[in-house]
Amino acid sequence: MLDQIIEPTLLLNESVVRANIHRISEKAKRNGVLLRPHFKTHQSREIGNWFREEGVDRICVSSLRMAAYFAGDGWTNITVAFPVNIRDHARINMLAEKVELHLLVESEAAVRALMERVKHPLHLWLKIDVGTGRTGIQPVHLDRIRKLISMIQHSHFEFEGFLAHAGHAYQDRGVEAIRKTYTHTTAQLRRLQRDIQDVAADARISYGDTPTISVIDEFKGIDELRAGNYVFYDLSQWQIGSCCLEDIGVCTAVPIVAKHPSRSEIVVHGGAVHLSKDSMVLNGETIYGLAVPFTGDNWSLNELGNPLTRMSQEHGIIRADESLFMSLEVGDLIGILPVHSCLTADSMGKYRTLDGRSIQTIHSC
Amino acid sequence: MLDQIIEPTLLLNESVVRANIHRISEKAKRNGVLLRPHFKTHQSREIGNWFREEGVDRICVSSLRMAAYFAGDGWTNITVAFPVNIRDHARINMLAEKVELHLLVESEAAVRALMERVKHPLHLWLKIDVGTGRTGIQPVHLDRIRKLISMIQHSHFEFEGFLAHAGHAYQDRGVEAIRKTYTHTTAQLRRLQRDIQDVAADARISYGDTPTISVIDEFKGIDELRAGNYVFYDLSQWQIGSCCLEDIGVCTAVPIVAKHPSRSEIVVHGGAVHLSKDSMVLNGETIYGLAVPFTGDNWSLNELGNPLTRMSQEHGIIRADESLFMSLEVGDLIGILPVHSCLTADSMGKYRTLDGRSIQTIHSC
Repeated sequence: MLDQIIEPTLLLNESVVRANIHRISEKAKRNGVLLRPHFKTHQSREIGNWFREEGVDRICVSSLRMAAYFAGDGWTNITVAFPVNIRDHARINMLAEKVELHLLVESEAAVRALMERVKHPLHLWLKIDVGTGRTGIQPVHLDRIRKLISMIQHSHFEFEGFLAHAGHAYQDRGVEAIRKTYTHTTAQLRRLQRDIQDVAADARISYGDTPTISVIDEFKGIDELRAGNYVFYDLSQWQIGSCCLEDIGVCTAVPIVAKHPSRSEIVVHGGAVHLSKDSMVLNGETIYGLAVPFTGDNWSLNELGNPLTRMSQEHGIIRADESLFMSLEVGDLIGILPVHSCLTADSMGKYRTLDGRSIQTIHSC
Repeated sequence: MLDQIIEPTLLLNESVVRANIHRISEKAKRNGVLLRPHFKTHQSREIGNWFREEGVDRICVSSLRMAAYFAGDGWTNITVAFPVNIRDHARINMLAEKVELHLLVESEAAVRALMERVKHPLHLWLKIDVGTGRTGIQPVHLDRIRKLISMIQHSHFEFEGFLAHAGHAYQDRGVEAIRKTYTHTTAQLRRLQRDIQDVAADARISYGDTPTISVIDEFKGIDELRAGNYVFYDLSQWQIGSCCLEDIGVCTAVPIVAKHPSRSEIVVHGGAVHLSKDSMVLNGETIYGLAVPFTGDNWSLNELGNPLTRMSQEHGIIRADESLFMSLEVGDLIGILPVHSCLTADSMGKYRTLDGRSIQTIHSC
């Protein structure tokens, strides 16, 4: 199969990916919590079906465009987990007419615009900032929260509850740190739920991120769990402690175009337009991926001391250890484990399974 | 026109872009040097035609796939300015049959593979490392250079000369620094040209980067000038001193989805998948773009104190000054000047002119 690869290609290990999907689906079932996986990571109808086979019937996406793509494949319960873009009211109307559409609001301006422009039912969640400081209302701002709940209750929309994403969990390292963030952030949401129960007794809590869903075993007081990256995982999640390297389901195969013995560097056709410019600090060094050799038609995790240390638009530079450097020639392929699989998948736009099958996404031309 | 924009959209100011193309074309003509613009920045057949109108008849691209895209639009003289990917020999054969195809080599392995697998004529350049340390042969490695020249001269291919890109010029700030890099690097190439004239008396020099082509006025001893980014420019080039802010030809229009008065931040639908994760340090701070308001149907450069300071997959966070913060509401559009226009253009995959026309690229579905 690798013989047929001539340019940068995002490989997908189907059994690893299916195992990731299965493991989390089982965990959610065991906990009696609704699972709403985030499809922004894979952005593929075919991979979406692998979730369906595990009993998933509701999903989360990060744009209305993505919602329309999956609605077109029979998904009927979709949350756009992003503060609603009210300019896109035509698409909101179109979607809300045919699916159960969940949207995030956090301002009176947004709720008012939806009330004026959207005639179909909507399920509205208040986006709560549990400490990340990206967006959302802080749970202590009860007056603002009550005002928005009241506006929604007096509209033709449904108030669902509170939705949060603990983005700051990505700074955690290890199970204990993740558990501490989880305990602290969900406590804020449950307190908020109690604080407003006089006006919204059945407000629900939707919560999630890949570190939490991966390492926490009991989800008490949470109605719905969301996460996306766990379908593929990546080096960032491995560093956090969400997964093993063996759980990483995608790897970019790139051709070697030059070798520099004097500095033990390998140059590959694989740069920012393929892998994205996302980086991480590993052993004190900023890296854009880890290079791994192929064994047969799969990538091997036996040699991991080979970071992708520099990158331009199409070039990647790997600092190779002696064994890897000597074993590869110009024209050979090498694999790059992603720092952030969501961005790599978005850049690459399609996948190739280890048995050579192509999997399309929203970006496939 | 802006009324019709509902999601992140890469705007292109056609008169600015055409002026950039015209200015550099005129400069090359004045100097009697061949201009080979790099089309990896815009990746668009339509924009390619704007170069044709200025007399450009040879181009440069960064992959064989891009070469095929432009060859399909009538370009007949194409350099793939990237160490040749010998796995792609089928496409090399296909291209070399119909266009004058220039490729970069820097190893015996690559030359040997081309000799074995490519039956059509090729024009080969040795990629020289003039100090960037990305890839290429250092000009002092004369034995290796002579060996490669000899291999090419004994093949059915043409040896063209030496090609270099002074990537380290991107660390320069201001005209004098750029001139110094230019003088130093081209001197290395001319010395190399003299050093091997006993075996290749007519070896040519192909050189270029956007800072050089923008600020240097005389190009003595250079046969061919290459550069790409100048078609659009960006904040990085402005910081280097290659252009004014008024020369930047593209700007991403993004919808505002939330405002946070307590920290004077604006959240937009415009993140890493739109703008790329490329960053720069401005006034001691890492930024991903500068936000600018719209005046009429164009972006305005009057207010520049509004950096995009954080970014995730689809979110961008702008730290807005009071005047900008107060003038915009949820649902309005704001423009983001790119840190690196090549990567933003690659991510966005198409353009919209200020009069509302769509311009397609190699990525357009």
